[in-house]
Amino acid sequence: MTANKIGSRAWLDGQTVGADQAYISLTDRGFTLGDGLFETLLWTGHDIRFFDDHMARLSASAAELGIPLPLPAADIHLALLDLGRDAAGKIAALRLTLTRGNGPRGLALPADPRPRLMATIAELNVQTIPVRLMTVAIRRNCTAPSSRLKTMSYIDNIMALKEAQATGGDDAIMLATTGHVACSTSANLVIRFQGKNLTPAVADGALPGIIRGRLLGAGLIEEATINAGMLASCTYAALTNALIGARAVSAIDNRSLTIDSAWLQTLREVLLS
Amino acid sequence: MTANKIGSRAWLDGQTVGADQAYISLTDRGFTLGDGLFETLLWTGHDIRFFDDHMARLSASAAELGIPLPLPAADIHLALLDLGRDAAGKIAALRLTLTRGNGPRGLALPADPRPRLMATIAELNVQTIPVRLMTVAIRRNCTAPSSRLKTMSYIDNIMALKEAQATGGDDAIMLATTGHVACSTSANLVIRFQGKNLTPAVADGALPGIIRGRLLGAGLIEEATINAGMLASCTYAALTNALIGARAVSAIDNRSLTIDSAWLQTLREVLLS
Repeated sequence: MTANKIGSRAWLDGQTVGADQAYISLTDRGFTLGDGLFETLLWTGHDIRFFDDHMARLSASAAELGIPLPLPAADIHLALLDLGRDAAGKIAALRLTLTRGNGPRGLALPADPRPRLMATIAELNVQTIPVRLMTVAIRRNCTAPSSRLKTMSYIDNIMALKEAQATGGDDAIMLATTGHVACSTSANLVIRFQGKNLTPAVADGALPGIIRGRLLGAGLIEEATINAGMLASCTYAALTNALIGARAVSAIDNRSLTIDSAWLQTLREVLLS
Repeated sequence: MTANKIGSRAWLDGQTVGADQAYISLTDRGFTLGDGLFETLLWTGHDIRFFDDHMARLSASAAELGIPLPLPAADIHLALLDLGRDAAGKIAALRLTLTRGNGPRGLALPADPRPRLMATIAELNVQTIPVRLMTVAIRRNCTAPSSRLKTMSYIDNIMALKEAQATGGDDAIMLATTGHVACSTSANLVIRFQGKNLTPAVADGALPGIIRGRLLGAGLIEEATINAGMLASCTYAALTNALIGARAVSAIDNRSLTIDSAWLQTLREVLLS
């Protein structure tokens, strides 16, 4: 039985390494240009939730960016399970990162990419306090593939979170450049509106989240174009992502929302299957 | 006299290090989230062109992102000059990078940021062949501060370059979400239109480039809203950035442009002052 502290080990290019050796070159394009992808996965204490869903998204996104996945999913799975051993019996956050690797300076894609794949694990304190959302000015750019991909270029979401917090919010509601509601800075949004559970469409800037995908697949939510008026009159709302599952929203733009435990439970049940 | 190979040394947190030790942690926010800024500076063989301009932009951008600069400009200048010694007598590209440093997982800004500052140097083969530009679908997001800041979150520009190259272009013309012309993926655009030298405004998604700033300051170009019609009927065009200075554009969207050496020379002269 291992006694490694959570986060004391990482995984890099197929090797387990000590965290003090988990480094990447200053010339890696993931670092220099945000040219890579990542997945954040829930370690339940003994397993990884929805590993196949995460791998499917990563593979499809990598193909779109033109970054070959250097290892098969089965190897990645084993590596993540091994990292998880450091958090046996505890929930934790696994992060899997794929970069385009080193290349000559400049933006041009290297003819012979040498992608790098790595994983880290971190302690996770899942916040259960309902979240207050504030609509911010920074929008999701629907003209860019990055609005649909979980790339390492996250500065807009960071600044959107900062903007929301500056006005008393815990997280932001980001609109899309289409003017419709997209998602929060690190979660998808579900609203209860006229008796339906609605979530913004990917074409409206929503990141195709893993939990969102599960809820859609189970028929518990449906895609819809959500405008500001619907946001201002919805009954309940929740945020979803792989780490929080479904989290209650207590206010949107300073309008308090009812928190309905039974409603949240219907969203959460699919996550236990 | 040093005999170090160009790029064999880097500079990290105030120390000169060998390139084989120039690494950054997998948990640095510059890596995980593109949460940082960079400057690309021209090493002329014996000096750094427009160092003060680059530092002014970096300082202002860092203040906007809330990343404290860990060292004074004079120390940074000395460090870059020292790296430049490895390219004595040759032009080279210096890259100065500032990240928000390590932080807990997630997007939330660390209460006590420990920014990291580093520099690398690379060989530079300035391309002098005129460039063919293609307008792409990916736009610059004017609602986001990142459209005005040289952040490490560069994926949209990478994908825009890829899109331009797929249609036979050497670089892209990116429109802004306002619908107006913004800039290329790594340079500003100047067009000669009805006897004037025009460049897109920062409010239209143009990165406030160093050469652009010098040309504006010298009164050689002026800011204007540029629409697709103007792009389709301009007389000449050029790209400008710190490394290329001013480079001729030979075609925009498959329309050939005249290359006027005297016109380009008027733009280039300011760069020699």
